[in-house]
Amino acid sequence: MASLIHMSSATTIFTSSSSSSSSSSTAARLLHFTTTTKFPNTISRSNPLQFRISNPKFPKTIITHSSSSSASAIQVDNETAATVIDGKRVAKDIREEVAVEISRMKDEIGIVPGLAVILVGDRKDSATYVRNKKKACDTVGINSYEVQLPEDSSEEEVLKHISKFNDDPSVHGILVQLPLPSHMNEQNILNAVCIEKDVDGFHPLNIGRLAMRGREPLFVPCTPKGCIELLHRYDIPIKGKRAVVIGRSNIVGMPAALLLQREDATVSIVHSRTKNPEEITRQADIIISAVGQPNMVRGNWVKPGAVLIDVGINPVEVRSRKPRGYRLVGDICYEEASKVASAITPVPGGVGPMTIAMLLSNTLLSAKRLHNFRFDRFDVFGVWVCLKAPLK
Amino acid sequence: MASLIHMSSATTIFTSSSSSSSSSSTAARLLHFTTTTKFPNTISRSNPLQFRISNPKFPKTIITHSSSSSASAIQVDNETAATVIDGKRVAKDIREEVAVEISRMKDEIGIVPGLAVILVGDRKDSATYVRNKKKACDTVGINSYEVQLPEDSSEEEVLKHISKFNDDPSVHGILVQLPLPSHMNEQNILNAVCIEKDVDGFHPLNIGRLAMRGREPLFVPCTPKGCIELLHRYDIPIKGKRAVVIGRSNIVGMPAALLLQREDATVSIVHSRTKNPEEITRQADIIISAVGQPNMVRGNWVKPGAVLIDVGINPVEVRSRKPRGYRLVGDICYEEASKVASAITPVPGGVGPMTIAMLLSNTLLSAKRLHNFRFDRFDVFGVWVCLKAPLK
Repeated sequence: MASLIHMSSATTIFTSSSSSSSSSSTAARLLHFTTTTKFPNTISRSNPLQFRISNPKFPKTIITHSSSSSASAIQVDNETAATVIDGKRVAKDIREEVAVEISRMKDEIGIVPGLAVILVGDRKDSATYVRNKKKACDTVGINSYEVQLPEDSSEEEVLKHISKFNDDPSVHGILVQLPLPSHMNEQNILNAVCIEKDVDGFHPLNIGRLAMRGREPLFVPCTPKGCIELLHRYDIPIKGKRAVVIGRSNIVGMPAALLLQREDATVSIVHSRTKNPEEITRQADIIISAVGQPNMVRGNWVKPGAVLIDVGINPVEVRSRKPRGYRLVGDICYEEASKVASAITPVPGGVGPMTIAMLLSNTLLSAKRLHNFRFDRFDVFGVWVCLKAPLK
Repeated sequence: MASLIHMSSATTIFTSSSSSSSSSSTAARLLHFTTTTKFPNTISRSNPLQFRISNPKFPKTIITHSSSSSASAIQVDNETAATVIDGKRVAKDIREEVAVEISRMKDEIGIVPGLAVILVGDRKDSATYVRNKKKACDTVGINSYEVQLPEDSSEEEVLKHISKFNDDPSVHGILVQLPLPSHMNEQNILNAVCIEKDVDGFHPLNIGRLAMRGREPLFVPCTPKGCIELLHRYDIPIKGKRAVVIGRSNIVGMPAALLLQREDATVSIVHSRTKNPEEITRQADIIISAVGQPNMVRGNWVKPGAVLIDVGINPVEVRSRKPRGYRLVGDICYEEASKVASAITPVPGGVGPMTIAMLLSNTLLSAKRLHNFRFDRFDVFGVWVCLKAPLK
């Protein structure tokens, strides 16, 4: 099952799956990526994006062979390899900054930010995501509130809890874990979250403000916010650059395009109906890919020196493991693209860890706004987080 | 003063200025456009869009010479000339369709749509726009309500009238004529219009819904709606096409890009920070230009066979007239581009007349929605107008 960060959740966190696989490889520059990946010929068709629509039977997994003897088969040249954009490290920095702000806020006005999560049903993946959110909140000092409801709960029951959290001054952010059971109207339920506490930033009013010049959204959706934050932290210029966003989902592609445009990039959006995605992508200085197609963006889709932000997190089968296992790959063929690009996010360890960091940041932002609290010195958390000192 | 449709008004109508110049030339295929236009060299710089920001002193008027002896200088080849997209004719058709619907609505449920316009101050241009709106309403059977307030009115007074119209069941659309006097907060006043009656469609909630897949806006802003409607009426395919929108204003460029994307075009937005606008524009199957730069898009910016929608309405000085006069030109250099394109909107007589037609259509849509009124046979006015029989 190919998936995107966020795909199955209002704020899905892939922390656990990320860390369960090759987490050590994401610590620094990923020059020791030693598996040999064979790509199905079909991937190199003129419009691989169309597969998602036109051929639902297209296998979403890619067979990979991992063996130590093949380590020399892929030579990553230190001279030409791209800078690895270390999302894990940046996310850690942001969590620490959030923790410092929260501690000061508590000291000065006695307020602790609170995040409420509503979980309906007993899906294991959803339970994991919620657990990870709680854990992340704990590490930075955000109070987390959780409501677990049985699968057969009524919509009214969920709405009752949302209403309670809307009115609760100790709750500054509300998340409803998706997917909801099929008998519930997702849109009704999400719309019930008051916009001042909609830390996911998916409310149409937020998206409208994001799209409009001269308006500011209350919250920027976490994953696209994380993508832009990575560019900022690595001091990668956006203004005047050609940017291509692959995918136009409400939760990643579309808001990512709006954010890039707000920063004065010239943005093109490539999607399943685009006839020549590789041709357009090849013009980009910055590519953000969020489609959930493993290794779709090949090396020859990339302009030399481009910056690549890979939002896809796609589990692919590894045959050689016994029992058969999976590893995670992005939408971008890392081995090929990292030789052409100037900077690239790995999968895992790139955009993934940023989503939760941005959720924590949005929750802090909400608490600050609701309590009219500003730090002169630390007031770096505006609509999106801006730090002065870029990493390189 | 270069201007866009809509530039100085929530719904600015250029009907009067359009008809005051060469209106006869827009009646059919504009093959007799005989003036020779000299373009300043500066226009052909690598990024003419940047002039608007970087060089505010850049003259916004272009000197043109009109003489009958130069008629032979520009030969418009009948074989290669583009189809002229006749916005005047389409707008007339739409007004007639709206009139038919309104008449049936009145007969069946006794409801007549109403449009309220609030005008503050005594700007002549604003007074003209308001008068044109009233006239257009009269021709289709929409009741128009007008409030004229003196320049020194208080914000509260304007808000009081908006509130009254919000509560008035005979009013289905509310427009506040812009610009407002400088002592008023425009955003506060526009936000006071209830979203169900915001026929301009500029509310961020509307824009957010326009941006999001699976959501529907209550109203689509009139000018971009008019652009797309022209494409529909001329049966010009959008799905899978490369589209470039030049300009990213909240009232035209940005919503036009969102509309094209909703119709599955691959959209790029070119703006003042774009480094190579002509290169990107040359890739487009469809160009919508809305920047207010006379004749900026030259023939060599256009891919052979492209479809060109010109939103710019720029008055340029004509020296040969005595007394000196002005004529209107678009953002697109008509003489050059019409030889390369497959279809093109003229200025005037292209997009201009569509804005008011779409305002009438939005007012009807609002009345239908507020009174829960649908015609089976004539239910062609959805979020945007779709007619079955395309013109060609």
